[in-house]
Amino acid sequence: MEEKKKKAVVLLSGGLDSATALAIAKADGFECYALSFRYGQRHAMELECAKLVANTQDVAEHREIDIDLAAFGGSALTDLNIDVPHNVDDDKIPITYVPARNTIFLSYALAWAEVLGSTDIFIGINVLDYSGYPDCRPEFIAAYETMANLATKAGVTDEEKLTIHTPLIDLTKAQIIQKGLELGVAYGDTTSCYDPAPDGASCGTCDSCRLRLKGFTEAGATDPRKYQSKV
Amino acid sequence: MEEKKKKAVVLLSGGLDSATALAIAKADGFECYALSFRYGQRHAMELECAKLVANTQDVAEHREIDIDLAAFGGSALTDLNIDVPHNVDDDKIPITYVPARNTIFLSYALAWAEVLGSTDIFIGINVLDYSGYPDCRPEFIAAYETMANLATKAGVTDEEKLTIHTPLIDLTKAQIIQKGLELGVAYGDTTSCYDPAPDGASCGTCDSCRLRLKGFTEAGATDPRKYQSKV
Repeated sequence: MEEKKKKAVVLLSGGLDSATALAIAKADGFECYALSFRYGQRHAMELECAKLVANTQDVAEHREIDIDLAAFGGSALTDLNIDVPHNVDDDKIPITYVPARNTIFLSYALAWAEVLGSTDIFIGINVLDYSGYPDCRPEFIAAYETMANLATKAGVTDEEKLTIHTPLIDLTKAQIIQKGLELGVAYGDTTSCYDPAPDGASCGTCDSCRLRLKGFTEAGATDPRKYQSKV
Repeated sequence: MEEKKKKAVVLLSGGLDSATALAIAKADGFECYALSFRYGQRHAMELECAKLVANTQDVAEHREIDIDLAAFGGSALTDLNIDVPHNVDDDKIPITYVPARNTIFLSYALAWAEVLGSTDIFIGINVLDYSGYPDCRPEFIAAYETMANLATKAGVTDEEKLTIHTPLIDLTKAQIIQKGLELGVAYGDTTSCYDPAPDGASCGTCDSCRLRLKGFTEAGATDPRKYQSKV
């Protein structure tokens, strides 16, 4: 008799990292429930990519949740009054930081996990490439996991405790790409661009495109994504 | 020159507790930003009450955010396939528990606080009356505060740390009502009912109505809310 697979909720953005995290969750033997968000992004390209990735990787279910982060403003990714910066290097928290975004995303994942009876959540954050985002740090994830286990039924019963899996947390972008290529991730289906062209082509010059292209170069691979220009 | 008031984000449900928490935040000298949620409740009565309360207590701003907790199911408050229980007493987690609800609500409050430059969030939870809900316990709030300070800019800069205020946490319902009456809260504008009549009258028999009515009795006061029947 086949053993029943454990369920995992996987946050899926349509980007390179979360597509890789999903492939890792599958390779680890989980039945995957992918969760994406419509949160006032400047473009719908990310969600189109998330759908492609969910489909290609054959998840048990893929849900898109509407959330209104744009209502609060404060980020270049959701506020049309703030320009997306190109070719910027500094130590400050980027203007593309969306307030409390990962906290909100994980909270929805937690709600779904509880309903599914799942005790495993996967999130494709990594600390090396995004050190400017406070909610991409291991100490944030550890604190979130502690809080989550107090927030839910698991915290007051003998049920198994919840685990937040961050399989990419200390990998470089090149290592993430190598891992994903081994697992057969179709990276042409993923987008990382903060400011894509109307036809969906990535800009090649925003922070996120530059990190991605550098990663492919260091991994000795070619990015199959369509670009307007490459730096 | 008048000193500028500190801003606070106050979670406002339209219920008795959050109306009292808002009055306390105001009395503590905060400029209040009230936040309510449309989350697949069975009725819109709560939000109507939240609007009345926000208006009467003259908040700086009141925002309503649509969130789709019903998409996940799992609670009698959001899932129409589960009946709301009446006249039930036991030690289990109530079926009216909404998975990760307070975690999600606080995460939106955190996002708004960060954009407003506020380091104070008020939530009207209390542990005595709702001990069946894991996310109403002081240890949950403490863990949330720790997590929140790692999630946001405050966690990586010298800015003031965020505080989650729970002014009702160890009060009985009667004490909450006494406090609110001292501060002039118009409790007729608030609803606590899980299952109100089409005209908005509270049922008087669900767990929440029973706690409220008992609280008014113990406070030696009369509940100005309209009821179908009183137990």
